[in-house]
Amino acid sequence: MAKFMDVHSGFHGVTPAELDAAHEADLKIEGEEGVHFERAWLDPEQGKVFCLSTGPSKEAVQRVHEKAGHPVTEIYELTAEA
Amino acid sequence: MAKFMDVHSGFHGVTPAELDAAHEADLKIEGEEGVHFERAWLDPEQGKVFCLSTGPSKEAVQRVHEKAGHPVTEIYELTAEA
Repeated sequence: MAKFMDVHSGFHGVTPAELDAAHEADLKIEGEEGVHFERAWLDPEQGKVFCLSTGPSKEAVQRVHEKAGHPVTEIYELTAEA
Repeated sequence: MAKFMDVHSGFHGVTPAELDAAHEADLKIEGEEGVHFERAWLDPEQGKVFCLSTGPSKEAVQRVHEKAGHPVTEIYELTAEA
């Protein structure tokens, strides 16, 4: 399993409740792709959402986000952490 | 205290040991600014480092990174997490 950070842009003004709903939508279907979304963080002023996940591939992470209705194009494989 | 994610670019080919050293340099001086760097993640292929921190302001986070020798310009205040 690899670890990933994906970054969504343009989410200005998103509320905490909307973030929760989006994260729940991911959690509901992530098992189909062997992915787990550990955490999501929101900066509504700059419109960014960061999602930390584990999974078999970037493509699997992308498929979950796409099926959940919030596709992402910016995704990073995290090979080290400190 | 607020929570922040900052993003460093251009760190292609950075090793896990170099990430550890950079993170240690932050930890050593972060107290001066009332900041704590909780975690740092590296994607050496795309040259990205993500740092999650808590602190009084973006400027305080920036000052720690600058004093530690790796200034950052991209920083987000995280007002919600899921």
